[in-house]
Parts: sequence; C-alpha cells; structure tokens
Amino acid sequence: MTAGDRNTALVVLSGGQDSTTCLYWAIDRFGLDAVSTITFDYGQRHRIELECARRVAEFAGVDNLVLPIDTFAALGGDALTDPDIDVAQGVDETSGLPNTFVPGRNLVFLTFAAAFAWQRGIGHLVTGVAQTDYSGYPDCREGTMTALQHTLRLGMESDITIHTPLMHLSKKETVELARDLGGLPAMAHTHTCYEGQRPPCGVCPACVLRARGFAEAGIEDPLLVAQ
Amino acid sequence: MTAGDRNTALVVLSGGQDSTTCLYWAIDRFGLDAVSTITFDYGQRHRIELECARRVAEFAGVDNLVLPIDTFAALGGDALTDPDIDVAQGVDETSGLPNTFVPGRNLVFLTFAAAFAWQRGIGHLVTGVAQTDYSGYPDCREGTMTALQHTLRLGMESDITIHTPLMHLSKKETVELARDLGGLPAMAHTHTCYEGQRPPCGVCPACVLRARGFAEAGIEDPLLVAQ
Repeated sequence: MTAGDRNTALVVLSGGQDSTTCLYWAIDRFGLDAVSTITFDYGQRHRIELECARRVAEFAGVDNLVLPIDTFAALGGDALTDPDIDVAQGVDETSGLPNTFVPGRNLVFLTFAAAFAWQRGIGHLVTGVAQTDYSGYPDCREGTMTALQHTLRLGMESDITIHTPLMHLSKKETVELARDLGGLPAMAHTHTCYEGQRPPCGVCPACVLRARGFAEAGIEDPLLVAQ
Repeated sequence: MTAGDRNTALVVLSGGQDSTTCLYWAIDRFGLDAVSTITFDYGQRHRIELECARRVAEFAGVDNLVLPIDTFAALGGDALTDPDIDVAQGVDETSGLPNTFVPGRNLVFLTFAAAFAWQRGIGHLVTGVAQTDYSGYPDCREGTMTALQHTLRLGMESDITIHTPLMHLSKKETVELARDLGGLPAMAHTHTCYEGQRPPCGVCPACVLRARGFAEAGIEDPLLVAQ
C-alpha cells in the first residue's frame, strides 16, 4: 500500500461476519494491495474477537492494525464492555435500546479510523454497519453515517469517504455477497456469538441472526463446518 | 446534579483559559448544581493540564471526571502527544495545518462527552472551541460543531446540544467574558503554555495569544499575578 495514494481503503475489521464481508468487498473494489484493516481493542468482553480479526486479515493477506481504546470500559454501563452486566434480550425500557448499546461506539471507531487514514493519506473507510436485520443501534443507520462523513470531512479538512456496502442488505444478502466476492472461506475464522463461545452458542441473538442468514442463502456456515 | 434532568450541562474542561471561561458561562446559564466537568487524559505531554482542570473544578465547586483515552498516543504523529516531535511554528507544508493538530481530537472528546451525557441524562455539552484567533484547527469551527451535533443526535437518538460560547469571540472578548461572569479568580489555576512551563514560558504561540488577550482587555492575568 502506497502512503498518500487516495485510492486506498481502510476496513474497520471486528473479526465478525459483516466486517469480513466488507474486507472482501474492499479488496474487490480497490485491489488487495490498496487495502488494510484496523481493529479496536476497546475492552470488549470477548477477546477472541481480536484474534479472529487478526486471523481474517492474515487469511486475506492484508495488514491489521490494532488500536487500543480504554475509554468505553472507563465509561462502563453497557453489556458489551462491562463484565457485571449480562446481555439482555429486547430493549431497555428507559432508552428503548438494547443493553449491548455502547453510546457512540461506531462514531468513535470511525473517527479514529479517519484520523489514522488522515495520517496515512488513505481516502476511503469501509464499515459493516447496516440498518436492516439489526438490533436497532442508531449509530448503524445510513443517516448517521452520512452525517458523520460530513463531520469528518469538515473536522479534518479531508475528502474521506465512508463506504457501507451492507447498509441495506439482509443477512441472507450479506452471505450471498460474501460468496460472490470469494469471502466464504474466511468466514471460518470469524466470530459472531455474543456469549463469546467457539463453537458459537447458537442461541444468542447474534448467533440466531447469523444462522438464519446462512440458512436463507442455502449455504453452510464455514464456521460451523470448521468445528 | 440530578440524574436525568435534561437541563444540565457537562463542560469539557482542559484546564486552560478557554474551557475555564466556558465553565463559568455554564454555571451562569444552568446554575452551579446543574454543571459538571469532564477532562480527558489522552497522553498530553503536559500532565499539569489534568492537575489544573482538577483545581479549576474544585475552585468553582463542580465535579470533575477524568476519562482516559489511550488511542491518540497509539496513533502518534503529532506534537501534542508524541514526545519525539517538537512544537513547530507555522503550518506543515503538506497538510497546511499546525503540527500540534491531533486529527479528530475535538470530535472524539465531544463524542465521549456525549456518551457520558447520554448515560447520565445530561442535555447540554459546553466546549471552548473558537474559530477566531486560533491556530486554524478545522475541528474548532462552527460548521464542524453543527455537523457533529447533528451526528451525535442521530447516532445516540438524543437531543444533546453543543454550546460553543467562545466561537466568535476574540481572546480579548473571552477575557472580558470571564471577568463579567466572575471567572477571573479561577484563571490563576489554569494552564495555557504549549511548553508546559509554570510560570508560562511567555514565548510559545499559546502564551503570546493569552498575553495579548489580557493586554487588550486591560486586565492583569491572574496566573502571572499568582506566580
């Protein structure tokens, strides 16, 4: 990857199915040599995600930078980073949001990704957020991403572009996209389960959503085949 | 401060002259009991800033939460967090920005502040950014702040408001505002110098700007009187 080449892309890679699909989308769009990945170590309770991101990047043949963010754990109060809080079904009565909601998480991820891109002259960010089939996180919606791109361009005097190739896809369509881009084998290295289990628990909302997507696409999940 | 009362304010307090003025603006606007402060420990080379923020908050009689952000130091590459880089005069030829520019710094600060406000039901953020008299940081401009507020509202499903009382004030006017709000005595506890010296070096751009503001307002700087 050539520093300063604006036709380069940075993929926010969580180690999950969606961001892995985005990685293959970016490789298809920008070329293998123009793509790198960034992963955030933000105190997620399942450290296996970081290992999966590393393995997916290695499998695909791209760099993987891990950046620490110790702030969310210091803020506390959500089920994804606070070990004292269990993942609950449904939404919180007060906020109307699932208790896995980390306020501002994707905004912070993409702002730091944009800061790194600014330093390296990378012109494109790719993220796996989607407003379909999801738990209703407001920071995954298209309007939020459009507003954030505008904010980042103003705040960094940059022409950065945020790509959200999965925004309007169902889980079935995401599986089909991964297949069409040659990304299915990499799925064996991904991680989805909210309970952090490998093989996946199969019953948490994230596992159920993933299983449904593969079932509707008529494709065996390489992660389950690999076990 | 009552949790869930939306008519409450969180001031992003750096320990400097501007954010201290904003603290007194917030106390005047929302009332002492409705105001708290947040300070970011982001690896700034001058740790004295954190101590100044604590002293200013204590002097004013408000809470001061310190949140860590280890990400900027991991990113590196700017003079404010990277000990290997000296503060340069003027702007970088490639980026057209001063080498104290930390890409996305204010965006990240305000996003984390908004996340904390979201958790506590605080309705207002106050920040000392200004587009006048400054080093030309694009993340201090009004357009950026308006775009960020829009992004935060969408991304957190909130009605958070970002206040920038100094946005269009000169340094002279900021000093006069602090005087009018009874905030001058607190200035003895603030920190401005880019070189981290106390008493201030008097020659770095930040010191020069501060001295000019007090001179133009015809007011003695309580920080210099206190030495």
